[in-house]
Amino acid sequence: MDKEKEQPTVDQLFIGVDVGGTNIECGVVAPNGKIISRSYCATLVQDGVDAVIDRIADTINEAIAALPVSERRQIAGVGVGIPGMVDPVNGISLNAVNLGWRNVPLAAKLTERLHIPVKIENDVNSYVYGEAVYGAGRQFNYVLGLTIGTGLASAFIINGEVFGGAGHLAGEIGHIPFDDIPYVCNCGQTGCLETIVSATGIARQAADAVSNGMDTMLARLLEQQGSLTARDVSIAHEAGDRIATAILNRTGIMLGRALAAIVPTLSPDVIIIGGGAAQAGEALIAPLTSELRSRLLPIFAERLQVRTGELGSNAGIIGNAMIAKFSANN
Amino acid sequence: MDKEKEQPTVDQLFIGVDVGGTNIECGVVAPNGKIISRSYCATLVQDGVDAVIDRIADTINEAIAALPVSERRQIAGVGVGIPGMVDPVNGISLNAVNLGWRNVPLAAKLTERLHIPVKIENDVNSYVYGEAVYGAGRQFNYVLGLTIGTGLASAFIINGEVFGGAGHLAGEIGHIPFDDIPYVCNCGQTGCLETIVSATGIARQAADAVSNGMDTMLARLLEQQGSLTARDVSIAHEAGDRIATAILNRTGIMLGRALAAIVPTLSPDVIIIGGGAAQAGEALIAPLTSELRSRLLPIFAERLQVRTGELGSNAGIIGNAMIAKFSANN
Repeated sequence: MDKEKEQPTVDQLFIGVDVGGTNIECGVVAPNGKIISRSYCATLVQDGVDAVIDRIADTINEAIAALPVSERRQIAGVGVGIPGMVDPVNGISLNAVNLGWRNVPLAAKLTERLHIPVKIENDVNSYVYGEAVYGAGRQFNYVLGLTIGTGLASAFIINGEVFGGAGHLAGEIGHIPFDDIPYVCNCGQTGCLETIVSATGIARQAADAVSNGMDTMLARLLEQQGSLTARDVSIAHEAGDRIATAILNRTGIMLGRALAAIVPTLSPDVIIIGGGAAQAGEALIAPLTSELRSRLLPIFAERLQVRTGELGSNAGIIGNAMIAKFSANN
Repeated sequence: MDKEKEQPTVDQLFIGVDVGGTNIECGVVAPNGKIISRSYCATLVQDGVDAVIDRIADTINEAIAALPVSERRQIAGVGVGIPGMVDPVNGISLNAVNLGWRNVPLAAKLTERLHIPVKIENDVNSYVYGEAVYGAGRQFNYVLGLTIGTGLASAFIINGEVFGGAGHLAGEIGHIPFDDIPYVCNCGQTGCLETIVSATGIARQAADAVSNGMDTMLARLLEQQGSLTARDVSIAHEAGDRIATAILNRTGIMLGRALAAIVPTLSPDVIIIGGGAAQAGEALIAPLTSELRSRLLPIFAERLQVRTGELGSNAGIIGNAMIAKFSANN
């Protein structure tokens, strides 16, 4: 840490913003990690880059306006989480497929509108950063986090700092290829882990089970709804459907196998599982943990913790705010 | 970096020491990374911990004594590389099977004898650190290095700093399990990568090929010598033996498969391959690289470099000296 920079007062407030393809969510985060003011709006990607950036700025101003006047001047920085490839040093959203953005100098454009320092980060890094600082990873130095959502991605937080890797490209755990996964991934490769371990992957396995004529209530759900989701698989599992249980089991085992290749090389203290599909809970986490532990040397199996995220949808907002705080203090 | 500490003068010299089960090798390293004085002796593990530590100290003093008097006072620190588990913060060799050491407070015992600051590190971390600072990784920020020797281990250097992970246990890439590897590892697990990707593993595959009745000159070598080494497989390959070539090919492919699980998560700039078995050269590196690239997303395949170590057996000495330098300056 640069000792010549002024240390922040304990009263500084930081703002975290999560920008997704559907919504922009914003929160003012107090030094204790609590969100003390919130705002949100629809992203409306189709309006174009500048309209979305205007809306991000408006949403931030709204969260600030909701604070008592005395606290407004305590705002010391903004962190914004963006899907896809990000250059956090130069504040550029390099490629956000959900937003249709390429090479958008988001930090500069927001700083211009807000006159507050702005940092940007990949949204999975932000989520795991929030969990690492104030959530399930708060007492650990080496935090590997995963989000099992539409896709599967990872982030690694080392001693309170996001690990970016070369080109800030680290975290693509979803694209580890497996020879025994037959599915073609959106990325063009065959066998990517996320074709099974994701909400999409769980739904795909469910559709496959039905089309293979398996005896499962998922067949009835598909007939009623016309399509199946990961949530349907969780519901069927809770209702005692053995095929649904087997799908979650296989999903957990595949993730356990992938993590068994990463843990000996990285030695994380804790693995945090988050994202929508993680709501399947123990039906997914138990086989994951059991498969992973069975494949690890005892020195790793004994000390490694596997936990689900604690902060839910607040993790991104808190993580983005804490990334802005880290940047202000370093 | 702590700005309040005094910066070193450009003339400071650091000593690197590699302690193996057979030899102790020592070198004084100049600020340009060159070794300007060397000494070595046999380890003679059977004499016990204190006798070996005395010999390490004597070897260091010998290298210092060989310097011109004016340079002796420029020695600013010693770095010692030790096999096995190391606690670098407290300077303790936790478990070095080759040396028969457990919980040896090596740094304190050497400082007591030498009156010079001593840092210790795992020898694979030191080797890769040397390559990262002055060898094949010198222009990169994220350096993943492997040593293919008796076993297989890895080290990761991030922005000029050894990445230790939880419990300083990172780097056990050799113990990633594969379902299609049938061999039982020294660690007790079945299917560990190092049962194939190591000098021992290459020799084991050669012995298997002979006992399976394959048509190979390795059969004649085995008959003549009574046993086979990885070096025999390289020699047979160079003589055009197709079975030997297939063994090196399979070894490279297995390592490529393991690295394909690690690269997307870590995004190293470069992978450096070192250790004795790496002397098989292109016969091993070419299939490794080709298998790895075929399994990576284009964003990783395009930017990742795979290189062999450049410093040979000097990498450990240089790395240990540079770890002592890093410690003196941070």
